[in-house]
Amino acid sequence: MSLQPLLINGEFRSAANPTGSYQSTNPMTGEKLPWSFPYSEWDDMEAVLQAAADAVSELRRAPRQLLADFLDTYATRIEKRAEALVEAAHLETGLPAPTRLNAIELPRTTDQLRQAAAAVRDRSWTQATIDTAAGIRSHYGPLPGAVVVFGPNNFPFAFNGASGGDFAAAIAAGSPVIAKAHSSHSRTSQLLAEAALDAINETGAPKGLVQLIYRFKPEYGYDLVADPRVAAVGFTGSREGGMRLKEVADRHGKPIYLEMSSINPILLLPGAISERAQAIAEDFFTSCTMGTGQFCTNPGLVMTIAGDEAEEFVAQAAALFDDGAAGVLLNRGVSEGMDESIRILTSNGAKVVAGGAAADAPGYCYQNTLLTVSGTEFLANPHAMQTEAFGPSSLVVVAQDADQMEQIIQCFEGNLTGCLYTDSAGSDDELYDRLAPQLRVKVGRLLNDKMPTGVAVTAAMNHGGPFPATGHPGFTSVGIPASIRRFAALYSYDNVRQHRLPPELKDINPTGDMWRLVDQQWTQADINA
Amino acid sequence: MSLQPLLINGEFRSAANPTGSYQSTNPMTGEKLPWSFPYSEWDDMEAVLQAAADAVSELRRAPRQLLADFLDTYATRIEKRAEALVEAAHLETGLPAPTRLNAIELPRTTDQLRQAAAAVRDRSWTQATIDTAAGIRSHYGPLPGAVVVFGPNNFPFAFNGASGGDFAAAIAAGSPVIAKAHSSHSRTSQLLAEAALDAINETGAPKGLVQLIYRFKPEYGYDLVADPRVAAVGFTGSREGGMRLKEVADRHGKPIYLEMSSINPILLLPGAISERAQAIAEDFFTSCTMGTGQFCTNPGLVMTIAGDEAEEFVAQAAALFDDGAAGVLLNRGVSEGMDESIRILTSNGAKVVAGGAAADAPGYCYQNTLLTVSGTEFLANPHAMQTEAFGPSSLVVVAQDADQMEQIIQCFEGNLTGCLYTDSAGSDDELYDRLAPQLRVKVGRLLNDKMPTGVAVTAAMNHGGPFPATGHPGFTSVGIPASIRRFAALYSYDNVRQHRLPPELKDINPTGDMWRLVDQQWTQADINA
Repeated sequence: MSLQPLLINGEFRSAANPTGSYQSTNPMTGEKLPWSFPYSEWDDMEAVLQAAADAVSELRRAPRQLLADFLDTYATRIEKRAEALVEAAHLETGLPAPTRLNAIELPRTTDQLRQAAAAVRDRSWTQATIDTAAGIRSHYGPLPGAVVVFGPNNFPFAFNGASGGDFAAAIAAGSPVIAKAHSSHSRTSQLLAEAALDAINETGAPKGLVQLIYRFKPEYGYDLVADPRVAAVGFTGSREGGMRLKEVADRHGKPIYLEMSSINPILLLPGAISERAQAIAEDFFTSCTMGTGQFCTNPGLVMTIAGDEAEEFVAQAAALFDDGAAGVLLNRGVSEGMDESIRILTSNGAKVVAGGAAADAPGYCYQNTLLTVSGTEFLANPHAMQTEAFGPSSLVVVAQDADQMEQIIQCFEGNLTGCLYTDSAGSDDELYDRLAPQLRVKVGRLLNDKMPTGVAVTAAMNHGGPFPATGHPGFTSVGIPASIRRFAALYSYDNVRQHRLPPELKDINPTGDMWRLVDQQWTQADINA
Repeated sequence: MSLQPLLINGEFRSAANPTGSYQSTNPMTGEKLPWSFPYSEWDDMEAVLQAAADAVSELRRAPRQLLADFLDTYATRIEKRAEALVEAAHLETGLPAPTRLNAIELPRTTDQLRQAAAAVRDRSWTQATIDTAAGIRSHYGPLPGAVVVFGPNNFPFAFNGASGGDFAAAIAAGSPVIAKAHSSHSRTSQLLAEAALDAINETGAPKGLVQLIYRFKPEYGYDLVADPRVAAVGFTGSREGGMRLKEVADRHGKPIYLEMSSINPILLLPGAISERAQAIAEDFFTSCTMGTGQFCTNPGLVMTIAGDEAEEFVAQAAALFDDGAAGVLLNRGVSEGMDESIRILTSNGAKVVAGGAAADAPGYCYQNTLLTVSGTEFLANPHAMQTEAFGPSSLVVVAQDADQMEQIIQCFEGNLTGCLYTDSAGSDDELYDRLAPQLRVKVGRLLNDKMPTGVAVTAAMNHGGPFPATGHPGFTSVGIPASIRRFAALYSYDNVRQHRLPPELKDINPTGDMWRLVDQQWTQADINA
């Protein structure tokens, strides 16, 4: 079987000296799909790096507008290829084609690309800051190198290294992207790269603006991150893999933005359980099994206070988990990871009350799984009890009282999200006031009375959080303009003559309505010379 | 001699089990000063960490206003003790008491503290972002831990761990500070801590809001950074020391902000040399010898293009360096570092054209030192030729032509600043347009026709830059609001009830004129419910 080509410097090329190959697999059947992809030798990496460096030079001379045109055109090109993309992604991931991939994830992806294009045109993301009396002006501008994006397994479009949130942010900031295709959806990534190349050709963007590589030996990943032609890295995936790349990036003083693991705790306060246990159980079940439980913000831990109502809630939830159809996981590794995580949880005292094993079905199907553990057992081994079971699984922690709930919150590692369900009459208010400040600092996004799986692409979104959910608590990978600024440098100009300033910092507002912080006031006005 | 006490949890205490001691030294004479300081055992560190954790809990319940009151009161308390502070700092650093410490650095320090206080009251630094349709709101809020600040040797007030820029930013963001006194001005740091304690007592701020420790064995520094009660770190100092702390902080996923080394290259374009060589030589000499050349933004490398005018410039500069009085260095280590750096530069081809050795005077006096090297020799060993000679020293690189100048710029490591001098008639414009984009991405602050040693405390300042000048190109340690946001976390609120939101994110603007990004428009208005 011939190996699929890489996208290098504006053309699809065979790997120069492939050291092996791997095949896409259909997780619904466990069967191999008819596409085989190369493991690259360093020749390919070197070619990609050099083309990226050339693209950086070209971009330095190009108008920013070009990147906006590219992003918009790419969105349109993706839409034109929607059918083929959805089909490939469905075959490679098992995610439902019409309801999920076509109706939700693909529009979300093109929307992100278009939001990024709008941000490039608007220029406000650069946060131009002008101190007229001091003669000093600053803004965020492009890094002098490429961004390598390692995408995750769970969103073949919206977080894909060649089309997702990190990709859109890096391009909007002004860097070329070197995308590492995830092995679970390499064909989908290849089709996206084809659409990207169409958009490059249509807009005259630098040939190396978007490149795609597949697998390579781990050392090459570290060499890639360390290479001087790479300025920053985006990674979404396992904690182990993320930490290894982080170590290399950190040693070389390069920004790396990671999203590693998160169990997204939910606190059910007593009033909420009394008021609407069944409704919450339904919300919880829906959220926990969405995308077969493989969302980054999946509610993997739910905490209640012991009592009849908590027992009733667990019974209601367990019934829903039992009755729900088993879903297809993304690949064999996810299924094996579920087995291993459940083993760790149960060997530390958790009890399975629904599911707990692979489903008796073709492919990588897993039962919806619910476990419970007492707060006391949780506290006996808080690290193990926070093992993420990536998939349709959650652990209900039954704390003996509010004090113990607070103790458990204090043991939480950093998470993307945290949520408190409270009653509508106010009986939970006092406990909320006590617990919310504790939970607040453990999570990036705090929710009330809402499950965390929806991640709106808006400016106030924080898809980030304290370590180890990410590598830095000040950044978000979703939401413009903040996600773009991650891949930029702060550039200050001191006493630089007016005609030499970048457009964002000249006296005349370059768009007429760009927002700038002039003498500590945000304004869209020109500066009076 | 009795050991000076540490500031722990609101009281000056003797070290619990000191493992040794060191004395302050007068660099003007080389003689010991009458203050001796302890090396701490871990007992002291544990006490400091616990008090800091208690302060974090207290701050969570306190109004933000308290921190503004503290910062303002602290500034006033410093002014009340100005005479003693200036005297101690002069004795410990040799910096001129009236012209530098009293007239410039002390007012700069109190100004920074007051700017930070104003930012706390104004709240705009939190960058509140509200998406009304999505029901999502975010802002920057306090980290759940202390900030450890390691201050440098060169600014006993303005960058002191107990009173400087990182200190002010961390307190304004809402974290207690654990200050490590620099060994070169421990008495000054102690007096500052006394003023801070006065301000704590006067305002009722948490006892552990500001604490001061002296030396300890290096392992304890790493354990301090790794401790869960510490949320972030600020460090200004050597590259070697910075990188060791960075490795620990990175491994624990903690933000660390470093300022490590910078030679601040200056490009003298041919038109500028023709037009005003003598004036530039005078500017250069003044800038290079300011604070005996020990400013972070000291111009340590000047590049010209070979020719008669370049030779004339070097001769003019050398004459100024020769004629200028030798200055006092901060300590013996700086003097030894000068010797070693000059040895590395000359052994790689640089020639000394002025100074080059310690001065024949009491204390740690060093001759103003100017070296030259050809562009070709520079390119033969670009790493060694970028050795920072911290002190009144600079290296003139004489490139053979513009092409070589460009090659050399491409070899530059990351720096805090970079500068281009150009003529006023426009004859340098073409070369500027070619070189400036290359230099731009190597530095945090780009200057025209101005030496880099002045660092204005304004919003558009960037006292930061690409690695290895700092650890991340997106941050500045000087300039509010950006410096404050370094020590904050991004906190998003999704569907959180109005009365539970922090004041910055409620519908009503909490100050009446705080700037917020509401539905992508910056505004000071309330939100219409």
